[in-house]
Amino acid sequence: MDSKFINNLFDVKGKVAVITGATGALGKAVSFGYGLAGMKVFVTGRSDKKCQELCSELEAQGIECGYSTGDPAVEADVKKVVNDAVGKFGEINVLVTAAGYNNPQPIVEQALEEWKKIMDSDVQGTWLFCKYVGEKMIAQGKGGKVILVSSARSKMGMANYTGYCTAKGGIDLMAQSLACEWTAKYKINVNTINPTVFRSDLTEWMFDPESAVYQNFLKRLPVGRLGEPEDFVGPCIFLASSASDFMTGANVATEGGYWAN
Amino acid sequence: MDSKFINNLFDVKGKVAVITGATGALGKAVSFGYGLAGMKVFVTGRSDKKCQELCSELEAQGIECGYSTGDPAVEADVKKVVNDAVGKFGEINVLVTAAGYNNPQPIVEQALEEWKKIMDSDVQGTWLFCKYVGEKMIAQGKGGKVILVSSARSKMGMANYTGYCTAKGGIDLMAQSLACEWTAKYKINVNTINPTVFRSDLTEWMFDPESAVYQNFLKRLPVGRLGEPEDFVGPCIFLASSASDFMTGANVATEGGYWAN
Amino acid sequence: MDSKFINNLFDVKGKVAVITGATGALGKAVSFGYGLAGMKVFVTGRSDKKCQELCSELEAQGIECGYSTGDPAVEADVKKVVNDAVGKFGEINVLVTAAGYNNPQPIVEQALEEWKKIMDSDVQGTWLFCKYVGEKMIAQGKGGKVILVSSARSKMGMANYTGYCTAKGGIDLMAQSLACEWTAKYKINVNTINPTVFRSDLTEWMFDPESAVYQNFLKRLPVGRLGEPEDFVGPCIFLASSASDFMTGANVATEGGYWAN
Amino acid sequence: MDSKFINNLFDVKGKVAVITGATGALGKAVSFGYGLAGMKVFVTGRSDKKCQELCSELEAQGIECGYSTGDPAVEADVKKVVNDAVGKFGEINVLVTAAGYNNPQPIVEQALEEWKKIMDSDVQGTWLFCKYVGEKMIAQGKGGKVILVSSARSKMGMANYTGYCTAKGGIDLMAQSLACEWTAKYKINVNTINPTVFRSDLTEWMFDPESAVYQNFLKRLPVGRLGEPEDFVGPCIFLASSASDFMTGANVATEGGYWAN
Repeated sequence: MDSKFINNLFDVKGKVAVITGATGALGKAVSFGYGLAGMKVFVTGRSDKKCQELCSELEAQGIECGYSTGDPAVEADVKKVVNDAVGKFGEINVLVTAAGYNNPQPIVEQALEEWKKIMDSDVQGTWLFCKYVGEKMIAQGKGGKVILVSSARSKMGMANYTGYCTAKGGIDLMAQSLACEWTAKYKINVNTINPTVFRSDLTEWMFDPESAVYQNFLKRLPVGRLGEPEDFVGPCIFLASSASDFMTGANVATEGGYWAN
Repeated sequence: MDSKFINNLFDVKGKVAVITGATGALGKAVSFGYGLAGMKVFVTGRSDKKCQELCSELEAQGIECGYSTGDPAVEADVKKVVNDAVGKFGEINVLVTAAGYNNPQPIVEQALEEWKKIMDSDVQGTWLFCKYVGEKMIAQGKGGKVILVSSARSKMGMANYTGYCTAKGGIDLMAQSLACEWTAKYKINVNTINPTVFRSDLTEWMFDPESAVYQNFLKRLPVGRLGEPEDFVGPCIFLASSASDFMTGANVATEGGYWAN
Repeated sequence: MDSKFINNLFDVKGKVAVITGATGALGKAVSFGYGLAGMKVFVTGRSDKKCQELCSELEAQGIECGYSTGDPAVEADVKKVVNDAVGKFGEINVLVTAAGYNNPQPIVEQALEEWKKIMDSDVQGTWLFCKYVGEKMIAQGKGGKVILVSSARSKMGMANYTGYCTAKGGIDLMAQSLACEWTAKYKINVNTINPTVFRSDLTEWMFDPESAVYQNFLKRLPVGRLGEPEDFVGPCIFLASSASDFMTGANVATEGGYWAN
Repeated sequence: MDSKFINNLFDVKGKVAVITGATGALGKAVSFGYGLAGMKVFVTGRSDKKCQELCSELEAQGIECGYSTGDPAVEADVKKVVNDAVGKFGEINVLVTAAGYNNPQPIVEQALEEWKKIMDSDVQGTWLFCKYVGEKMIAQGKGGKVILVSSARSKMGMANYTGYCTAKGGIDLMAQSLACEWTAKYKINVNTINPTVFRSDLTEWMFDPESAVYQNFLKRLPVGRLGEPEDFVGPCIFLASSASDFMTGANVATEGGYWAN
């Protein structure tokens, strides 16, 4: 072991990452984090306008980036996005699936189509990106890092969450299965990151320290606060770097200790 | 506490159970087990012929039973089956979802349609039966017991299982979510049973004690053998009885200790 | 499968059980439950007076019972109790370790001796009873059922619980290890039961529906209520009966869904 | 988010770490890794000679280090080591408890004293270092990072491991409890790292690719190889750095996917 080994441990410079759901709060945090760490960032989302804006912001910080729009639940879109990424940067080394959707409803009131929309956005979209990025990574023969954004909810149920919890519970196992399928054979590590509530436009209302929602959350969060987008970046770089080469199929708690109590 | 309390603990006589996948090995075991324990058994599966045969066999043992065919992944079929069950027996007290499907393939070789078929059979079918039986149970106002047949694979990945493991991982969380949604409010307990390999027509080949498959299994199974259909009956009656009234959202290991080592 | 099989599934008549911590709320519930189910009950605790009183109460209900006092953390005591049990009933078929102790304190304020007392009462006492009852069961050659009373806290930390949570987390793994060591070889199944708060003299204060403690608990308990001693009996009989022969090394949630959310 | 934020994420320069079991393979790897990353390293172990040698090796690489010998299971020793560390470097920012001991034996053959030795070395030693380092960290008022070296065995039993598995199962919960006790209040994060077999003098024999032991391990290790000391360094730096500030009470799988299948 020498200084060079240590200096390279978390070094991800030059790696190409595809980030889905990149225009959401977590996806955006990863995009900036990866870009500022020297990675080439290929972002995707459903809105062309938002993707373009994100790219402009990234480039304004000197980050090399590209984008392609598409619905992660639609196979043709995923193929296109993956091909566009390879077209732009020549290869893919890291995949982060940060796209997701939720619509909490009691099961007896939720229409099948609505439940399917959650499952398709969360599970099918993740599966499709794994399939088509995996195909490229295997063909490249240089290994890779796949990071599926799951949730603290992947191990804990919640009323009205028969869509979201089911989806996230499934994603953890998808990662575990892909670890068994890919890591020894292709040196592609597959792990999940499991966040609790992080600050975003959608969750801002939960961060009012006076509110009952916030107070209740704190009782369950040993870390004593909800998540900030910056909190998400460290684990994402760690799992993209050689520092985590011996980790695969892991569900990495990034939830302020929610699982611990 | 008195003798009467103890004698009633596991008594399920007269309860009405709907059992999906009833013509499979586990479904069949539950159907006979419940029937012999005095329950009224309403079985369902995709094959009319097989359902009818099963019903004849059940009746030959003096078991009160009925059946209705349908595909658990098809909403209209599920509605029909549930209505037929209520039509036949007046109410539903217990649901066991034993229907399932698997087709192991590397993700890069598996067609989306084939993956969807696994997810639809395993997850959507379970969700639909929970939704429509739940609706009845809530309307009846007498509580109920819902038992989702998951798998030891719900917590352990496997190469070529991005369908099955994902599906079963999801089902565990569906149960946990429904427990949060239903138990306090409606006295409907929702738990999973998580079996490892049990003897059936499909798995008979794994039971050859000389085979490498069997030998490898035994290294992982503290109980020292694979499962027999009879092993499945006890936990199913337990979870249908008042003996388990304080258990909900539990994933009950019925896997010979597979999870324990 | 026939009626006889079903009728015998939960039948534990005539079996001999050793129950530690029998004078506590859970131990007492098991003692009565087992006795009323026809088992011979050998109880133990530290207080001779309490053991004797319990035995009188059990006998008043027509239950065959015996007792021997001792400290489960003291090796000589455990040997004596186990020998007394065999002396009284000729053999031991079931062991339930319900003895336990807690004293919540911040780690920086807790004296080593106090922490050791928790660990010795909870872990060492359990280990010693497993060792000496296991020795007898192995010598008997008829298999057996060992049920370690763990806690919902075995998987969830808590402030000021570096003793209790550590102890219970350890007990779950002791059961898993013994399952690997004993079940295939000697047909001794080893499982834990993991209760949340159950009503007892010590916990009665938590059951006031108006109190903040109770209200907070309910937010975490999908079942919608805390545990009553009767809730504990069903799982204990289940795990002592042939209905659970395929379960070993399992941590059986008897916690109202505490783990599920 | 800016470059400075990213550059500081994994920067641990100048932090003071106390490392127990530092003369073992994992402890040594952490000592070098931390030292090469610019941390001040205070090592401890039972052998004065080995500690001194390690310190010389560390210093030969330009690492600032100190040492103090002691038995982690002996309270007076732990107090002395912690005081010596503060005496040497003025404060403690990171604690890694890498000391441990095992002696696999069937429970019925293992003497209580031998079992206690495992428990004392692994659990009590960890508890004592948490207590006395925690006291310092709280007094310092600057937060801190505590990393308990647990094991993949903390969630999976093994024949003849009623000591080791019990101990490691307990350590996971100790971390979870301390997370609840310390993180919100004192900004001290407490996590475990859970390794599978890593190369060391003691385990070298398991690394023969032709051996049955190795072959069996590989069937359970999705990563396709056993651990090298270098694999341990990345997760240890990650958990000592601000990159993991939102993680507490986590059991970080560093086990090649052992838990995932």
